Order: sequence, then structure tokens, then C-alpha cells
Amino acid sequence: MLFKKENLKKIQNYIKEKNIKGYLIFTSDPHDSEYVAPHFLDVRKYFCPFSGSAAEVLILENEAYLFTDGRYWIQAEKEIKDSGYTLIKKGDKNVPSLLEFIKKNNISPLGVNLFEMKMSEYEEFLNNDIKIVDLDISNLVDNLVSLSKDKLFKLDNDLTTLTYKEKIEEIYKKIEEKNAKANLVTTLDDIAFILNLRGNDIPNNPVFYAYLYLSKEEGNHLFINKEKLDFEIEGITIHPYEEIVDFIKLHKDLPTLLDKNRVNAKIYSLFNNIINSSNPSYLMKAIKGEKEIENTKKIQAIDGLALLKFQKYLEENIDNNLSEYDYSEKLKEYRLSSSLCFELSFETIAAVGSNAAEMHYAPTKNKNSIVNKDNIELLVDSGGQYYGGTTDTTRTFLIGKPTSEFIHDYTLTLKALINLSKTIFLEGSTGQTIDIRSREFMWKEGMDYKCGTGHGVGYILNVHEGPNGFRYKKVKDRDDQAEIVPGMITTIEPGVYKANKYGIRIENNLLCVKAFETSDGNFFKFETITYVPIETRCLDLSIMNKEEIEWLNTYHKLVYDKLSPLIKDDISLLSFLKEKTKSI
Amino acid sequence: MLFKKENLKKIQNYIKEKNIKGYLIFTSDPHDSEYVAPHFLDVRKYFCPFSGSAAEVLILENEAYLFTDGRYWIQAEKEIKDSGYTLIKKGDKNVPSLLEFIKKNNISPLGVNLFEMKMSEYEEFLNNDIKIVDLDISNLVDNLVSLSKDKLFKLDNDLTTLTYKEKIEEIYKKIEEKNAKANLVTTLDDIAFILNLRGNDIPNNPVFYAYLYLSKEEGNHLFINKEKLDFEIEGITIHPYEEIVDFIKLHKDLPTLLDKNRVNAKIYSLFNNIINSSNPSYLMKAIKGEKEIENTKKIQAIDGLALLKFQKYLEENIDNNLSEYDYSEKLKEYRLSSSLCFELSFETIAAVGSNAAEMHYAPTKNKNSIVNKDNIELLVDSGGQYYGGTTDTTRTFLIGKPTSEFIHDYTLTLKALINLSKTIFLEGSTGQTIDIRSREFMWKEGMDYKCGTGHGVGYILNVHEGPNGFRYKKVKDRDDQAEIVPGMITTIEPGVYKANKYGIRIENNLLCVKAFETSDGNFFKFETITYVPIETRCLDLSIMNKEEIEWLNTYHKLVYDKLSPLIKDDISLLSFLKEKTKSI
Repeated sequence: MLFKKENLKKIQNYIKEKNIKGYLIFTSDPHDSEYVAPHFLDVRKYFCPFSGSAAEVLILENEAYLFTDGRYWIQAEKEIKDSGYTLIKKGDKNVPSLLEFIKKNNISPLGVNLFEMKMSEYEEFLNNDIKIVDLDISNLVDNLVSLSKDKLFKLDNDLTTLTYKEKIEEIYKKIEEKNAKANLVTTLDDIAFILNLRGNDIPNNPVFYAYLYLSKEEGNHLFINKEKLDFEIEGITIHPYEEIVDFIKLHKDLPTLLDKNRVNAKIYSLFNNIINSSNPSYLMKAIKGEKEIENTKKIQAIDGLALLKFQKYLEENIDNNLSEYDYSEKLKEYRLSSSLCFELSFETIAAVGSNAAEMHYAPTKNKNSIVNKDNIELLVDSGGQYYGGTTDTTRTFLIGKPTSEFIHDYTLTLKALINLSKTIFLEGSTGQTIDIRSREFMWKEGMDYKCGTGHGVGYILNVHEGPNGFRYKKVKDRDDQAEIVPGMITTIEPGVYKANKYGIRIENNLLCVKAFETSDGNFFKFETITYVPIETRCLDLSIMNKEEIEWLNTYHKLVYDKLSPLIKDDISLLSFLKEKTKSI
Repeated sequence: MLFKKENLKKIQNYIKEKNIKGYLIFTSDPHDSEYVAPHFLDVRKYFCPFSGSAAEVLILENEAYLFTDGRYWIQAEKEIKDSGYTLIKKGDKNVPSLLEFIKKNNISPLGVNLFEMKMSEYEEFLNNDIKIVDLDISNLVDNLVSLSKDKLFKLDNDLTTLTYKEKIEEIYKKIEEKNAKANLVTTLDDIAFILNLRGNDIPNNPVFYAYLYLSKEEGNHLFINKEKLDFEIEGITIHPYEEIVDFIKLHKDLPTLLDKNRVNAKIYSLFNNIINSSNPSYLMKAIKGEKEIENTKKIQAIDGLALLKFQKYLEENIDNNLSEYDYSEKLKEYRLSSSLCFELSFETIAAVGSNAAEMHYAPTKNKNSIVNKDNIELLVDSGGQYYGGTTDTTRTFLIGKPTSEFIHDYTLTLKALINLSKTIFLEGSTGQTIDIRSREFMWKEGMDYKCGTGHGVGYILNVHEGPNGFRYKKVKDRDDQAEIVPGMITTIEPGVYKANKYGIRIENNLLCVKAFETSDGNFFKFETITYVPIETRCLDLSIMNKEEIEWLNTYHKLVYDKLSPLIKDDISLLSFLKEKTKSI
């Protein structure tokens, strides 16, 4: 599967043979997944030595370009050395976008796999007069791994508020409201949500590769590798995954709901009568039901216990010079020791000092730093997939001696978290309405974290989920500006990142709940459903007001109340919890 | 000009004659003006007895409907009694929108004057399969007033940073950037802005009816009643207003910048090669230059002086039982006593008690209340058009004994004003990012004002101007969500409105200025450029913090410094100013 120069030569010969000017490889799958199965990623890796998780590769007859953003420039430069590739730094000053680059250099006709290009993107290319030739190059790859044949599993009734039949009935209503007759769902988390099924096809994301076609008139049809199913699904006809194309050709004239921003260009182009709209399941999935909320709170406590144990382990081993990777493995062990946890929800970030200042750093077995008192902090951002919910928590643990600058920045971060968490807001507010409640203290001092304040979280599903989020402005291709309504779970994760010094982040999960109704409207607020002590030994109390200290003490009482019942006979752990949650 | 039942009959016969199902009259002009000249308004008034400034009138062969929003329901019900009209309460629960109503009742073909329908609206109607017939009914109206022939006036060089030629050069560049060859400007304030000319065609809005066609290749052309001009404009060819249609027909194939959301359907439909984009002048106009800012600050002080005199007059006459209208006339007199003030920028709102609770109440000679100590407050929202800028200020004057509820709500309103005014924000922030800084204290108590927190203000132009504003969510057809950048002037006007009790509003004008630049970006802040004392005798200091009190004292020092030099020998007024601006 490893890149070799001759692989690049192979595709360059292919380009000549097909009479195209170049070939463009995305890092994507036919379902617009944020993370993709090895089957899709490995095609890119076969032709290009870059190993990161976000990039486009553009190959011309005699040249080859890697497009990737600031997170990966250093890594990319190392990895593509002497490979024949040139790095294009996406987002850097005066660097053209991918499309601008292609247009400027007149790389047309251009080969792509239309299954892996979003329709909205395809349209943009066509509008810029780039001729696209649909070509699948996976057959050029030696020994390409196939898609997972792992079995699906059903969610028990006590894990979901609605049965899949009830969800489909809801979707039928929405289809009708839009004057459509069918809805083709191509996004994997939506399919898993609707059917109350989960799979194991993408690391950390319990989804499975499939297409789901829903229609009161034409019936419901699931396109999936049949080997993955050892049960029937009443009311749903099962077809082989590949048959989706022929099926659509037969149903192309039926008015069908499709999301142009998510559906791949190949599938989209087969239809004759499209009603462009986000999938009804998209918002349904974001608004968690009663059982989903109850279960999530339960497993959040279990997850909190794992983090508490981890923190105790960290404090006890701080002089043992363990590495960031050792600690991330230990945390994994604590999480998976619960029978309810079946996987991590993303690769654990455990980072000290300058590593923590890189927002997307994650240690590996071969690339990590030693964790000891020479560092001020260990930043740990991690989460689990549980039969009962998905978690995503960050804590910045104090391990060395904090500077006054660190104390100030840590306190600002906590103030940001508290201020937004306490917001009471009117129905109709979006993440953009609310976001400044987190950033305002930092902006006052000319500081800012270069990311959203938070994202939606799935339920036994993807840890990043739309359409809710907190972001102070709309960003292209980020769908996180929906109204925040009761039932939505959104992270809040402000931070301060100082290059070559330290990184600070504190992250909780916030459940939106009703606050009160008055003659002026419905007002909502947040309930924090992450139960993990927050470091208090590096706070500058002189810049915190009474309400903020009160919030922190109330929060720690909640953490104690949630975690202490789970600690049975472990007196040492209980006293550690008491210490970590005591009032300040 | 008055409505008579036979007028309605006349148009109903016309509907029969033309073989259409109905006729729709907007309250609009061909230029998407917020307020329109009597020539356009009177057509609606001739056929329908409603006198308010926002409504649509839908006439069928045997029925007639008035569509208007909550501000006008009471007035509308009175005015249309026994006229044959039925009121449709726009925005009320379960009430269909105009388009839904037309669709449901299958009122197609429908007659409209395409000159008075926005292209985006027209498209929406067509998309809903409503057949539109373009019919001008103004010839059915007896004695219709013609458009004003008032002369235009030039702005002196010291009133504008850029000459009209420099502005046109800028626009040429923007036209080129968009790959267009021309820009047809149809919005009247943009035309006045570009040409540094003003007129007198719409009350309170110093604009003039015209179309402006700009093209490096085809030349610049102004379409206007030639009687209005007693000078030439170098580089601009003058044509009669009506010739715009024939002119476009000759130039229809040239790629032309047009704003679909502002241009009327008649004009838009004439073009063959449209590049849809907001006019380059739109953002240019919102970002005030050096001279515009300097002049605005100067006339804001003059305007502040008029309001100070008014406040003194109010306090001295409070036992004389004058009416709201008397006071509004007195304020007008004070404003116009400055040779720089040539008009009010909108009809003055002067309202006590329950009148003040109605957001859009304005007293008239025949409809007003007495102002005396039986009322807690007199709310005055007013502004002037000056050779040097446009103002818009609200103060809530204490005239009677405040209840503790009033004191609380007044203090909340001031806290809202102060909190947003003090905001420091990162480049890229919009009004939606910032708005919650004003509302947060009220939301916490389940209160909200049902309007935006503020709007852009023109320069010797319309008092309402896009694309800047403060609003916590996007509202359809409101273009106020642009990034807030240095040079923009935006009002901030939070309030508390309690039906049958009182209305409170405090309004300043905020100039966006640069705060500082750090490695995290450009940060902006606001400078208050309204100089009018704020009532301090009804504040609950127990809910104000030190910074808020400090802000207020600093503001009052600024007001004193700005106004005192303008008060020459009037010792009594100077001591009044001192009293009203003293520290608390």
C-alpha cells in the first residue's frame, strides 16, 4: 500500500492514455464523510506519500501537487521530500484555491471520480468551464483493501426514543411537505440514525457504508453489502451496495429530496427531478429525544469516572517520565474498562507545552513528548463511543509550575466557558448569536482562538455533527449555523494557544434546555452534561467575579454528585474526587 | 385624492375588462425606496382607504384585501370599515403570506405594475406558477400628483471625501473585478451618494428620482427629469427619466451588474446578460470617509444642542399641559434654527406612557396626548438632515414619578446600551455576532424588544441604510448582516415596551473604529458620536457595576466638552448642561 515513485508514474501514464490534462484525488468517500474508510484513503496514499487526513492531490502529466492546510504543512513538507510532489499551502497569503489553480493553469479536461466529488463542488468546476471526465482509478492500485464486511448491530429499544419505523413516518411527512415523493439519504450517520443501526466501517465513527432510499409510494430500500446483515429489517428491501445506480435510473423521474451540498456528483446527476433540501433526518438527529438525553447523561458520568481515574494516575506518575502516548493509552484502557464503551470517539489528543499549542496534535507510538514537571500542563482532548452516547471532553491538567501568563490565560479560558454556559437566549438564536459570550474576554485583550467555539455531538455516532455549533461568523462549507433548540448537544471549547509555549483548552458538552416562557417568547439555556473536575490550582481569582466562582463551585458539586455513586469501595479515588471538586 | 367606493368599483371593472383574476398594489416605487413619493403612494390611497406606510392591496373582481403587519392592525381596521375591504393580518398566527394567499385562491393571472415589483419577488411568484400581467393603473387615478420637479443641489467639496469622478473610478474597478462592463444603479440613495448630489423628492430622504448607468466603455448616463438640473455634470450624459427603457434595450447584451434584490422586475427583465451582485456603491456608501466622519461629528454636536434646549424647554413647561405634537414641533424649531439643518431625517416620535409603548407611534396635530407629570416619561426619537450628516437619537425624559418597575427597566436599557457600546470585536464579526451584547441582560429576565438593536445611518441621506445593523438573527429581506468595519455608523437603540404602561428607549449613533491589531488579527470597537445627556435620575445603581457607571460619567464628560463650546452667552443653558452631565 506504500507510495512508490513508480505509482505516480503509473497514473501519469494513465493521464496521457486518457487524453486528459490531469487527475484530481480528493480525500473523500461517496457519502461526504468527515473521516473515510481505508479503502478510499488508500487510493490517495498509493499515489502520494502524504499521510495526513485532509488534502487534495492534483497530478499532471509531468508534475504533481499536494494541497493541504496549515495544520499539515510541516508534516507534508517532510513526507513529500524527493517524491516529485510540490506542496501548495492552502489558506496561505496569495496562494490560489484548488479551483483557481486548476483554472489558471487550464487543467481541463480533468479526471476525477465523480462518486467522490460533491455535487455543489462539481457545479462550481463546471461554472468555471473546467471539463470533468469521470474516471475511477482504484483499479490502478495494487492490493487495495476492500470495504469492511463487519456486521451491523441494532440499538436496543431502551437506547432510542423512536423506532426506525416512527422515524421513517416522520420523514414521509417532511417529504410530503416539500412536495416530493422520495428521499435518498447518502450520509452515513443519517442512515445509521434513521435505522437505529450501527456499524464499524470507519474508525471512531460507528457507521456503515450504505445508501437509503425512502418513499411511501416506492417503498424503502437499503443498498449495502449483504454480508454485513444477519437479520432482516421489516419494511426495508435490501439490495447490493452497487445496485444504487441502476435503481436510481429506474426512479429518476420521481420528485426526490436530495441535499446538493452532501450528495456526490455521480448519484446526483442520475436524477431528473430533484428537490434540493437538507435531509429531514439531519435536524431530527441533532435534536436528541428523552431516552437519548437520559442515556447520554448516564454514560457521561461513566466517561467522567475514566477521566478522574486518569487524572489520579497522571498525578501519581508525573515523576516517571511517561510519554504523551503512554498516557493516551492509559486513558483508553480506563475508558474501555467500562462494558458500555466500545470505541474511542476520536484519536486522543494528549499534549504538553508546544505540542498543546498545535490545535490538532495527537501523539503516536513513534512521535510524542515526555510528560513531566518541566511542562506546565498536559492538555487532554478525548472521548468515547458508548452504548448510550458519544462524549468529547477536554481538560488542561496542571503538572508543573504555572507562569503568571499561563494563570491569566487559563483563567480567561475558564471565564469564556462559564460565560457562554450561563447564557439565556431567545428562541431563534443561532450559534453565531451566542458565540461572542465565549470570546468577549479574549477579544478585549486582542486574543482569539482560531476555530469554532463548539460543534454538535452525535448520539452513538460521529463526534462532529451538524447543523448546530458555535462560531462568530459563517464559514463556507461549515454547516453549523442552525437555531439552537432544546435537545441539541453542542461542545463549548474555548482555548488559548501560544506557539512554542503552551496550549490551554477546557471543553464541556452543553445540552440545550428550555429556560422559561414569557410574553416576549420562549427562552432557552444550557445544562452542562460533562462531569469532570476542572483544574482550580492555576486560577487568578482577582479577575473572576462572584457569579463565576459560584458557577464553578456549583459545577463541582454536580460532578461530585454524579461520580461519587460510581466509586464503590475505592476510598482513595473518592478522596481524590473530593479534593478535586472542593469549593474555592 | 381621497378614496371613494366608486374608485374600488373602477378597478374591479378594469380587472373584468383585462381578463385577469385580480390586481396587486404594492407600497413601493421603481427604486425599492423605503419611503416613496406621494406620486406612488397616492395610487394605493386612491383605491384603498388605509393611510399607513406599509401594506399591500389585493383587489379581486368582487372582493378586496388589505395586507398589513401588527403595527397597523388597529388603524387599518378603523380606516377600512364599510369600505368593502377585508384586513389580512400579516404575521399573525396561521395567517398565510401574500403569496400563499394568492396561490391558495388561485388568483392568476394577476395584474401588477412590474416597475413597482422587485425582481426577486417577481421570480418567487413565477416559481409558484402565478401568471403576472404587467399593467399600469396610474391612469385610472384622477388628478394624480406628478413627481417633484425640485432642483438638485451639489454637496460642497468639504462635505465629501471623494469627488463623484473618484467614486465612479472606484466603481469601474469593481465592475471589472466582476467581469462586467456596466452597472445600472437604480437605488436613489446610491445615485445621490455617487454623484454627490441631493434632492427633495421624498419627505425626509434627500434623494431624487433617477437611474444611473455607469460604464467605462459605454459612458455614464443619468436618467432624470431635466427640469431638476440647472447645471451640467461633466462626464455624464443626461436623458429624460422615461428613456431608461429604450436605452437598456440598446445595451441589453452588455454584461451588466445588477442587484436582483433591489432592481424592479420591469427593468431587470430587459437585460440579456446580467451579473447579479449588490451595487459597488452599496458598501462604499456605508463606509464613511474622513470628511464625512469629521462633518458628522460636528453636526451631531449641533443636533445635541437642539435636544438640550428641548429638554430644558420640556422641564420648564411640564405644568403647561402641552401636547406631544406641540413638543415635536418645538424640537423641529430648535433643529431648524441651525442654518446647517435643512430637514428632519424622519417624523419625530414624541410619546408618553402607552403611546411610547407602541414602537412606531408618532403624534399628529389631530392625534396626540397631553404631556404632564401624570406620565412617568416622554420618549423622543428624532433626527435631522444637515449639511454635514444625518442624525437619529432617542432619549427617554423623566417627567413624572417613576415606579420601581420603570426604574429597573430603564436601568436595564442603559446597561444594554453601555454593554454593546463597549464591545471590542474581531474583524469578520457581523451585527449578528455582536447583538447579544445588548440583549443579554433583558433575556436573562425573559424580556426582549421586538426589533433590531440598530441600523446603519446615511450621510446627508436616508436614516435607514444597509448593509450594517445589529440583529440577533437573519430576517428575510433585511439586509443588515454585513461585517461591521471601521467607518460604518450604526445606531444602537435597545428598549423596554410595556403595553398600556410605558415605553423606554435610549439610542446613540456608533462609529466603528480600529481598536488594535495583534498577532490574532484586527480588532475593532465603537466610538459614540451622539452627544446628548442621558437621564440619570431613574437609575437603579444597585444593578450597575463600576465599569458601567464609569462609562456613563465619561460619556457625560464628552457631551459637556462637545456642547459647551456651542453655548455662548446663555448661562442658564450652560448650567442646565452642567447639571445634566454631572457625574453620578
